[in-house]
Amino acid sequence: MRVFVTGCAGFIGSNLVDRLLGDGYDVVGYDNFSTGRQEFLAAASRSPRFRLVREDVLNSSALLEAMAGADLVFHLAANADVRHGTEHPRLDLEQNTIATFNVLEAIRANGIRRIAFASTGSIYGEPDVFPTPENVAFPVQTSLYGAAKLACEGLIQAYCEGFGLQGIIFRFVSILGERYTHGHVFDFYWSLRQDPGRLRVLGDGHQRKSYLDVQDCVDAMLLVVEKASGKVEIFNLGTDETCEVNDSIRWITQHLGLSPDLEYSGGVRGWVGDSPTILLDCSRIRALGWAPKVSIQEGIIRTVDFLQANPWLVESRA
Amino acid sequence: MRVFVTGCAGFIGSNLVDRLLGDGYDVVGYDNFSTGRQEFLAAASRSPRFRLVREDVLNSSALLEAMAGADLVFHLAANADVRHGTEHPRLDLEQNTIATFNVLEAIRANGIRRIAFASTGSIYGEPDVFPTPENVAFPVQTSLYGAAKLACEGLIQAYCEGFGLQGIIFRFVSILGERYTHGHVFDFYWSLRQDPGRLRVLGDGHQRKSYLDVQDCVDAMLLVVEKASGKVEIFNLGTDETCEVNDSIRWITQHLGLSPDLEYSGGVRGWVGDSPTILLDCSRIRALGWAPKVSIQEGIIRTVDFLQANPWLVESRA
Repeated sequence: MRVFVTGCAGFIGSNLVDRLLGDGYDVVGYDNFSTGRQEFLAAASRSPRFRLVREDVLNSSALLEAMAGADLVFHLAANADVRHGTEHPRLDLEQNTIATFNVLEAIRANGIRRIAFASTGSIYGEPDVFPTPENVAFPVQTSLYGAAKLACEGLIQAYCEGFGLQGIIFRFVSILGERYTHGHVFDFYWSLRQDPGRLRVLGDGHQRKSYLDVQDCVDAMLLVVEKASGKVEIFNLGTDETCEVNDSIRWITQHLGLSPDLEYSGGVRGWVGDSPTILLDCSRIRALGWAPKVSIQEGIIRTVDFLQANPWLVESRA
Repeated sequence: MRVFVTGCAGFIGSNLVDRLLGDGYDVVGYDNFSTGRQEFLAAASRSPRFRLVREDVLNSSALLEAMAGADLVFHLAANADVRHGTEHPRLDLEQNTIATFNVLEAIRANGIRRIAFASTGSIYGEPDVFPTPENVAFPVQTSLYGAAKLACEGLIQAYCEGFGLQGIIFRFVSILGERYTHGHVFDFYWSLRQDPGRLRVLGDGHQRKSYLDVQDCVDAMLLVVEKASGKVEIFNLGTDETCEVNDSIRWITQHLGLSPDLEYSGGVRGWVGDSPTILLDCSRIRALGWAPKVSIQEGIIRTVDFLQANPWLVESRA
């Protein structure tokens, strides 16, 4: 079986590729390396069952050609920057919405029947119900990122109905672990490396969120692909626990042996469109027999260890 | 106050323009006349308070310039063809999703604070709950049209949060009345004009849907614009009654004095992505003091009368 992975050089994408190759699949990876890293494909590149296509998802003809012969498409390529969405609204439109349209058109033209898509818990906006189930009340979007992922989900669902595809949609919490390249742990680690005596914290530190280790995430994705048979299958992916930003700061600074002064920007949100609480109801994926193996605390520590072991990645940040 | 109306030469748009002019507003209308009709602007064009810009919403710079000085934007321009979505998926992406992005960017660049948007009950897909309220369980899309309108709604909501706009979203049932240019009444009337002895019906004729007269629709839109003050205001617009396709056929043929043989294509849906039942919970708009004045039966008869009085429109169909 041949699996096509967009965003193959990204954080989740490269971990998925390694697992797929380990499981014996042929893998074609597609990445424009805008945020992807060649280093993350070091192991994959040594496999004769891996082929890399260095191209953009906005290049429809390259995408169409690269996807030929695939049985399943994992579409992970995205602009994953939630926080700075309002600084460049077009990025979400192009890299998320239009990119997903291109992927679906290439799937259709190639006669492929299945797509698995990385969506986000951000599409719930600021829900009233916690843990938030997949079928919560029709949400109102609060971020351009969430809005773009919603647009992608809608497109996938309509293609499933209109063209007989199967669409698997994963709504992730924030993911942690090896090859983590952006998010609050990266920001805090990077900042403490610049100035160990001071840490600027967005919001009041009481934002309460769930996180998931990347290996647990990949486990869940592959399990769903194996077991889910419905036309449109939507799964929240997260842990049943949350931590406060302040918990995370305590774990990170203790692990690093630091005691920085904390400076809070204030307010209950880290930025415009930030959701103060993220906790997804994951009973649907748990019913398939999956459970996360890594706690949030352990995931955050592992992520810090990864960043410490890979200074090149931290130094590459402008 | 200056009001900007995209899709000003369309069915709903031109009726809205006439009402706005009658109410004393300055109106700038924008239309590419892909489906809009110069004839629908005959009255408006005689008003010194109306200015027409003949351009496409995909032309960002023309849109930006035309919108200058507006206080409120009604964004009605759209590809409104639900039924043939799978024949041209790019049309919904471009004319609905990207077009709405362009409108929002032009609003932002012009410092305008309010947008009112024509969405659709089709974004509920095939709901389990009737009448369907605005906050029904997170739906799954079944048409490219619905998916595109969902994308537009998400964009508008995210812009409201990110850039401090007010967004008013109307989820319409099918609209009937003067200047009606497409939909089942048009199709049936056109077909009976070709061959009064035979009528081909998509589905089994038992699809049960709600319809709303265009004047009732415009009344509701203007009332919401006047009264709703929340950041994101979403209103279903429809009647509390439904009719079967078979009811509609009976009313139309009796009114025309015809007794055609009916040939059903079969199945519970008229086409892929058609929702067999559409009935929206309109208690939210009714709580503002609005109620429709025209029944579905009356609306269908009036629509037939309009088509009979305007053979040029019916003849213009290829």
